[in-house]
Amino acid sequence: MEFDAGGYRPSHFAYEFKDRVATITLNRPERKNPLTFDSYAELRDLFRALVYAPAVKAVVITGAGGNFCSGGDVHEIIGPLTEMTMPELLAFTRMTGDLVKAMRKCPQPIIAAIDGVCAGAGAIMAMASDIRFATPAAKTAFLFTRVGLAGADMGACAILPRIIGQGRAADLLFSGRSFSAEEGERWGFFNRVVAAEALAGEAAGYAAMLAHGPTFAHGMTKNQLEMEWAMPVETAIEAEAQAQAICMQTQDFSRAYHAFVAKQKPVFEGD
Amino acid sequence: MEFDAGGYRPSHFAYEFKDRVATITLNRPERKNPLTFDSYAELRDLFRALVYAPAVKAVVITGAGGNFCSGGDVHEIIGPLTEMTMPELLAFTRMTGDLVKAMRKCPQPIIAAIDGVCAGAGAIMAMASDIRFATPAAKTAFLFTRVGLAGADMGACAILPRIIGQGRAADLLFSGRSFSAEEGERWGFFNRVVAAEALAGEAAGYAAMLAHGPTFAHGMTKNQLEMEWAMPVETAIEAEAQAQAICMQTQDFSRAYHAFVAKQKPVFEGD
Amino acid sequence: MEFDAGGYRPSHFAYEFKDRVATITLNRPERKNPLTFDSYAELRDLFRALVYAPAVKAVVITGAGGNFCSGGDVHEIIGPLTEMTMPELLAFTRMTGDLVKAMRKCPQPIIAAIDGVCAGAGAIMAMASDIRFATPAAKTAFLFTRVGLAGADMGACAILPRIIGQGRAADLLFSGRSFSAEEGERWGFFNRVVAAEALAGEAAGYAAMLAHGPTFAHGMTKNQLEMEWAMPVETAIEAEAQAQAICMQTQDFSRAYHAFVAKQKPVFEGD
Repeated sequence: MEFDAGGYRPSHFAYEFKDRVATITLNRPERKNPLTFDSYAELRDLFRALVYAPAVKAVVITGAGGNFCSGGDVHEIIGPLTEMTMPELLAFTRMTGDLVKAMRKCPQPIIAAIDGVCAGAGAIMAMASDIRFATPAAKTAFLFTRVGLAGADMGACAILPRIIGQGRAADLLFSGRSFSAEEGERWGFFNRVVAAEALAGEAAGYAAMLAHGPTFAHGMTKNQLEMEWAMPVETAIEAEAQAQAICMQTQDFSRAYHAFVAKQKPVFEGD
Repeated sequence: MEFDAGGYRPSHFAYEFKDRVATITLNRPERKNPLTFDSYAELRDLFRALVYAPAVKAVVITGAGGNFCSGGDVHEIIGPLTEMTMPELLAFTRMTGDLVKAMRKCPQPIIAAIDGVCAGAGAIMAMASDIRFATPAAKTAFLFTRVGLAGADMGACAILPRIIGQGRAADLLFSGRSFSAEEGERWGFFNRVVAAEALAGEAAGYAAMLAHGPTFAHGMTKNQLEMEWAMPVETAIEAEAQAQAICMQTQDFSRAYHAFVAKQKPVFEGD
Repeated sequence: MEFDAGGYRPSHFAYEFKDRVATITLNRPERKNPLTFDSYAELRDLFRALVYAPAVKAVVITGAGGNFCSGGDVHEIIGPLTEMTMPELLAFTRMTGDLVKAMRKCPQPIIAAIDGVCAGAGAIMAMASDIRFATPAAKTAFLFTRVGLAGADMGACAILPRIIGQGRAADLLFSGRSFSAEEGERWGFFNRVVAAEALAGEAAGYAAMLAHGPTFAHGMTKNQLEMEWAMPVETAIEAEAQAQAICMQTQDFSRAYHAFVAKQKPVFEGD
C-alpha cells in the first residue's frame, strides 16, 4: 500500500511534507535530540515506508535547537542494554542496523543538515545520508569507544572508510574523537559548510533541486552507488549499462532532449 | 595479430605514435570534441588493440582547441537514443561501457590531459584514465542527470567514489554540477594542475617517464589495481605475491640491481 | 601458548614492553634501518605472536636515528632475489606478504611513528599500520618501480587506494615518487604531522590512550575494518550487529555506563 506522505504523523520526531520533500526533525532539543528504542524503530519504519512513497522525491534530516543528534540516550538505551541477554542485544543491534539499511535502500536522496552535536547514532545517521551539509559549529563523533564499545556500529567500519579514507576512519573509530566542520569538509564527509542561519535553506534548496530533477534516475543513481559497492569493475560497468538503458526509456530523458533542442529548461516529472 | 602502432590511422580522432607513447587527440574543436557512435566505437577498438601493441608503452589522451571533451553529442547521440528500443539502448550502453573496460584492461598507463570542458562521457574518459592532469580552466561535470539520466553511466557509481570518496561522488552524480581544477586536485581526481601552455608537455613528460621505466611491471601494477578492487585484503596480498614474483624474473629487475651496484642509472627495456 | 610480552628479546630490531604498549624500533640507523630476510621473518613472527599476547594492548613501530625504514636491503635482499628460482621468489613474496597479513590480523592497533626515510617495504609497513604520525621531514615512497618491479607489493594496490584514493595511489605506484608529510596529511595517509622531538611522545600518548581504553572492543574495531573490506553494505551491517552485540556483553561497556551515571571517568580493563 502506498505511504501517505502528507498525512503521516510520527510520534517521536517532527515531520513535514511539502513540495515533494519530506523533512524529518529530531526534536528533543533539551537533550540534544537523543534516540530512544522507540525513535529508532519509528525512523526505521519511515525510511522503509518511503520505498512506497512516490510523492516523496527527496528527504532532509535535521535536528531542533542547534544540535543534530546526541545518539542513543544513556538512560533510556545504554542502561537497559547493560542488562540484556545476547538475543536481546542482537535484536537491538539488528534494529539499529536496519535503520541504516532502510536509509540506504529508499530511493530518495537524503540530505543531512547538521548543526552542533552529531554523535554516536547521530553521526551514523549523517554517514548513512547521501549528502551532508554542516555549520561551522558542527561537532561530529563516532564515540562508541567512549562507552566501551567497538567502532563497528551500524556499518561504520564499512561505510566511513569509503567516505573519508581508511586511515582517517581508523583514527575516528579507535579514538572516538570529534572532528570539526572544517576537517569534515576537507576529508569529504561534509559536502558544504554553511552559516547556521543558512543551513535549513541550503538543505531545502538542494533537496528541491533534486526533487525537481529526474527523480526516477536519481533513485537509480542511489541504487547503483549501493549495489556496486563490492563489485569488480567489469561487473559494475555491466550493471550500469542495464541501469542506464532503463533510464533511457523514461519520459524525463526525452523531455530533457526536447527541451535542449527547443533551447528551454527541461521540466522533469520523475517518470 | 600485433597492432601496427606506427601505421594506425583512425577516422574519428587524431593519433600520433612517437618514442613508445601513443597520443590520442579528440579533434572536433568547433563542438568541443563531442563523441559520436562512431568515435566511441573507434576508441573502444583502439584501446582493445593496445593489448596487442607491445611497442606502445604509455598513452596520452587529450582534446584539441582548449577543451577535453563535451561528451556524447546531443544531436548525433542523444536524439537517436530517445527513439530506440530497449535492446538497441542496451547495445549502446554496453558499447560505451566497453570503452571504459578497454581503457582499464589495456596494460599501458593512460594519462588524461584536460583543459576546458570535460563533461559527460568526457568526464568518464578522464575517470577511466590512470593519471589526470588539468589546467586551471578545466571544468569537469558528470552531468548525466542534466539530460534526465542516472549518474550510473559507464561505471561512474563504482569508480568515482574510489577516487574522491563516496560523499563527494554522490554530490557530483546527483547534482550533475561541474567542479574546478582546484577542487579536483584537492579531492584526488587530478594528480596535477598545470598552466594551459604546459599541459601537453607535462603529460608527455610523465608518459615518457613511464614508457622508459619497467613497463612490464607497470602493466602488472595496472592489472592489480583493477583486479584487487573487490578482493578481501588477504586474497589481494596473495595475488600480489604472485604478481611481484613474476616481475622478479624480468630482466628489468636485474638491470635495476646491476645499475645500482655500478652506481649507474638503470636502462629499462620492458622485458 | 601465551606470548611473553615482557621477556621477548628479538635479534633484528629493538623491542620494549611497558605499561600495556609494545614498541618496535628498527635499529640499523647507519643504513636507515633496512629490512633483511631475517628481520622480515622476525617481524612477521612477532605480529603473529601478538594474537596470543593479551598483555599487549597497542603497538608502536618506529625507526632509530631519524629515519623509519629504507625498505629491503639492496645487497642483502635485492641481489639474492635476482638469482632465485620462481618457487624461491614466491616463497619470498609470500613471506613479506605474511608480514602485512600479520599486522592486519593482530588485535592490537598499530601506530607507526615516521621520521625521515620511509621507503619500499618501510612505506608498506606504514601503510599496514592502523594510525600514522609523521614529522615534517618524513619522505615516503612506494618505490618498487625504481628497482624494476610492480607497485603490486605486499598488498599496496589494494590497501593504498583505500587510504588516499585510487588516483593518488596510481601516481605513487606507477612513478615511485616520494611524497612529503604535508601531502600525506592532506591525502589522509598521515593522521598527524608533529615536530621530530615530539614524535615518540605523541605516538606513545596515542598508544597509551588506546591501551587504557576498551581494548577488547578496539580489537573488534580492527577486525571489522579488515573483514568488511569487500563486503556488500548490507552484509557489513549484519556483521557489525553481531560484533557490537558481543561487545555489549563486556564488562567495559558496563563500566562505562556506571562511570557515566556516577559522573566519573571509566576505568577500562579490556574484558
